[in-house]
This record gives sequence, structure tokens and C-alpha cells, in this order.
Amino acid sequence: MRPSAMSVADLEARLSAEFPDTFKRDSGLAILEAWHGGCRVRLGYSPATLRPGGTISGVAMMMLADVTMYVAVLASIGWRPLAVTTNLNINFLRKPSPGALIAQCRLLKLGQRLAVGDVNISTEAGEHLVAHATSTYSIPPS
Amino acid sequence: MRPSAMSVADLEARLSAEFPDTFKRDSGLAILEAWHGGCRVRLGYSPATLRPGGTISGVAMMMLADVTMYVAVLASIGWRPLAVTTNLNINFLRKPSPGALIAQCRLLKLGQRLAVGDVNISTEAGEHLVAHATSTYSIPPS
Amino acid sequence: MRPSAMSVADLEARLSAEFPDTFKRDSGLAILEAWHGGCRVRLGYSPATLRPGGTISGVAMMMLADVTMYVAVLASIGWRPLAVTTNLNINFLRKPSPGALIAQCRLLKLGQRLAVGDVNISTEAGEHLVAHATSTYSIPPS
Amino acid sequence: MRPSAMSVADLEARLSAEFPDTFKRDSGLAILEAWHGGCRVRLGYSPATLRPGGTISGVAMMMLADVTMYVAVLASIGWRPLAVTTNLNINFLRKPSPGALIAQCRLLKLGQRLAVGDVNISTEAGEHLVAHATSTYSIPPS
Repeated sequence: MRPSAMSVADLEARLSAEFPDTFKRDSGLAILEAWHGGCRVRLGYSPATLRPGGTISGVAMMMLADVTMYVAVLASIGWRPLAVTTNLNINFLRKPSPGALIAQCRLLKLGQRLAVGDVNISTEAGEHLVAHATSTYSIPPS
Repeated sequence: MRPSAMSVADLEARLSAEFPDTFKRDSGLAILEAWHGGCRVRLGYSPATLRPGGTISGVAMMMLADVTMYVAVLASIGWRPLAVTTNLNINFLRKPSPGALIAQCRLLKLGQRLAVGDVNISTEAGEHLVAHATSTYSIPPS
Repeated sequence: MRPSAMSVADLEARLSAEFPDTFKRDSGLAILEAWHGGCRVRLGYSPATLRPGGTISGVAMMMLADVTMYVAVLASIGWRPLAVTTNLNINFLRKPSPGALIAQCRLLKLGQRLAVGDVNISTEAGEHLVAHATSTYSIPPS
Repeated sequence: MRPSAMSVADLEARLSAEFPDTFKRDSGLAILEAWHGGCRVRLGYSPATLRPGGTISGVAMMMLADVTMYVAVLASIGWRPLAVTTNLNINFLRKPSPGALIAQCRLLKLGQRLAVGDVNISTEAGEHLVAHATSTYSIPPS
């Protein structure tokens, strides 16, 4: 596995500085591992992400999928914060029981202008997949 | 246009009670209009939704698309809060300048078990479309 | 409505020459109208497109959606046959009864590098929508 | 790996009988392997699937993705030909050089009413992924 262009500590520090609302101390997001072409991100459990039926909201999972894809892109091309999502498609597969989620991204394509990846989201207990997303990022000229 | 199964005031009151984190007083979400088969929802501007480049974050627009689809479903079938998103696909078209957004949903299909709709998101100034989503909701047995 | 960059007759002649397998005489595809930013395409009925249950196959509708988006792009930027689909998302809404289909495309975004559009497919009788697609094309440098 | 509900020979015989246009002798489709929850399908090379630029058409890859998902569903639930696609999302990643394609499907969810899966399509030479699809099938009551 080729190493990440940035360390996990560096990624987290810069993301917190640029996106204080998303990566704030109590958001529960943590990068577990990052490499060239992918990463794993954890979303800690918070009652704020629940919706009726006692399950984690779809919006929390969409945010997690988008952040995980963003981290995978930055881990592969270095700090280019103006990379932006152009498409995200997500299927919600099962209602997760309350608890932390783990998202794993792999880039399917890393071109000069576009990166495409997929993200598998499962419960931390790992018993099953709860959502699956594919996403495209547009990469700005360096 | 066939009227909504619930008034806008009733929809907002129940959504605020069930989803206090999303529909909290300062979230900026407001239902402008709802009818059988569709609705219009406004997301007020908040610096919290900005991302690098001074534009509104993709997560804020995904949340808006998902909420708008949910309101359109509830306006059509009445209060069934356990309806859940099974798929959401979104294309981000242009970087919105800072300001309020308007999302309009129309249901393309309203079946017994599934509802499918699309959502157009534009700036309130209305000069152009900034995102377009399609989404499927699973409808629980009544 | 701004006129198409190419006439319908010219579009059909060039598409038949470049894609003889798709636009062959008996494929049933006909461009009804084209303008800058959109078009309407008809797919005639053929028993070959049926699948079990007596309905038109999903593959025939995906082909129709993709061709319609391609025609809308060419009508807007002129003859650039190397434009290619990068993403297509389609929802099948109702089983169409046997008969011709009409697809209408509008471009949601026409940039230098990417075009995004949606396509509504209905039966020619017009009673209802049978499928809805969104698609992105990558535009080669001119 | 749990075995398929139907043998490959049985699947091919029934699909050829039900979908003579798609599974006809010269279509080049062959099921390489099938198991409960997935399968691999080969699409042989044919000049008819080419498009300008000498590459394989998107429509051929959409057909392959849809068929592969269908085979994975039938291999898991047995012969229920009225199962139908409700959604398909495909990203085209690289222009495949002329040659056979291999599609591999895994089901992400197999419920009573819905099955969701993803499909990776690569060249037979295997050097890289050329397309990635996710799809949902609606399963009729048995």
C-alpha cells in the first residue's frame, strides 16, 4: 500500500481549521487510517444524529460518506481543499443500531480532473453494511 | 393542484418535535408551500454552512434535498414519520454564492411501498440551479 | 428558445454514420426536436425490446436515456462525437405498456468540461412517466 | 461461499428462453460463476459494441451491469423472472480497449422486497476497472 500524501495528524489538523463546523471537537469524526487511494473514518455515536425509530439519520451517513471520500482524495493528491463533490449516490441498506459507524473508501479512479470512489459504511461492531455510496470529486488545477 | 394531507404549520410543528436537531429554531429550514405530490422548502443562510472557497457545503445541500423529499412524501400520504430514504443521488452544478437556498420537490411516483421524486435547488435570488437530486423513500405499511 | 447548433436532419445523418449499430434504420430511434439545452427523442415499439411480463426492457430505456442526453449535448455544442458519458443514474417508475416511448432532456448545466442533464421518459400516449434519468457527459477540448 | 440456488447451465438456458434478444447465441454473454449473493459474467468482444474513438459503448456496459445484477439476484432467490430493476447508477471510469469485459456483482443487501448490489466491470486482461455500477431490484412476492 502506497502511503498517504499527508499524515493523519496533519489531515485532521487542517480539516479542523478549514471546516470548524464539521470537524469540531465534539462532531465525533476521526480518521483511523489513510493511504494513497483510500482511508477509514469513524463517526462516534451521538444522540443528535438519531431520527424517529431510534436509528442514525441519513444525513449523518451522507456527511460521513462525503467526508470519507474527501479524506481519500486529499490523502492521494495532498492538500487541495478546493476539491469539490460533483456527484454523490447513496443507498441506505439497513437501519443501524445506535453506535459508532466506520466508513471505508477506495478510489476507483484518480485522474487529473476527476476522482471517483466508493464508500462502505458499517457499524463499528461490524456485523453488517448499513450504507454504500459512490462519489465523484472534481480536482482543481494545482 | 391537490392540497397537502397536512398543513404547513402542522408539518413544521411535528417535524420540530420529532427531529429537534434538524428542525431546531436556528437551523434556518422553513416549509414555504406543500401540496399533494410536492413542496418548496427554504434554507436560510448561515455562516456555519460555508466551506473553503466561501461556498455553501455539499452536506447542507444534501440535508436540504433529503428534508424536502421527506416533506413532499408526508404532504402526500400524511404523517408517517417512519418513511425512510433508501436512495439519494445528487449532482452539484454550480457553487452557490452565500445566501438562502430554495428547494422544490415533485414526486415522480407515489406507490404503495416506494415514492420517487426529484429536487431542484436554486439560490433564492433564483438566477440559476445549484444542485439537482433524485431520491427514493420506502413507505412503511400504514 | 435558442436554436440547436445542428439541424435534426444533420444530427440524424451523422449519428447514423458514426453509430450504425445504434442508429440503424430499424432501431426505431428518431429525433423529434432539438434546441440549445435540450431535445426530444422517440423510440418506436419493437417486440425485440420486450422482457418477461410483456413490458419494455430496462436496457432499452437506458439506451434511450443515454442517446437523448447525447443529442442534447451535441445540439448545444455542435458535432463533438468524442463527448462521453461519465455517469448515468436511472429510476424505473412504472412498467410501460408496449408502445413507443418519448424521452425529453434538459441540460441542467453546460460547462466547459462537463454537461449535466435530466431525462424524462414517458409513453407516447403520455399518460405517465415511466423512467427518469440524470446523466453527466465529459466534453473533450475543442 | 453458499452455492447458487440454480446451476449456471440452468440459469443460461432459462435466460436464453425468456430473453432471446439479450441472451441470443451471438450476444457474447456468458455466466462464468454464480453463488448465493453474487456472480461473474463475461461479455465477449464484438465490433457492434464499439463507438467513436474505438471504445466499447456505454450502453453495452449498462446492459452488462444490469444482466449481472439480475443473475446475482436469481442465483440467490431462485427463478423469479419478474424481479425488475428499480434503480441503476453507473460511473464510467476509463475507456476500455477493444476486448472482452468481466463483470462481478456482490449483493450488498438481500431483503424480502429489495435487493441492492454493486458491479465492478474490468477488461478481461484485468489491468483496470472500466466501470462501476450500483443497482436496486424489486423482488415480487413469491
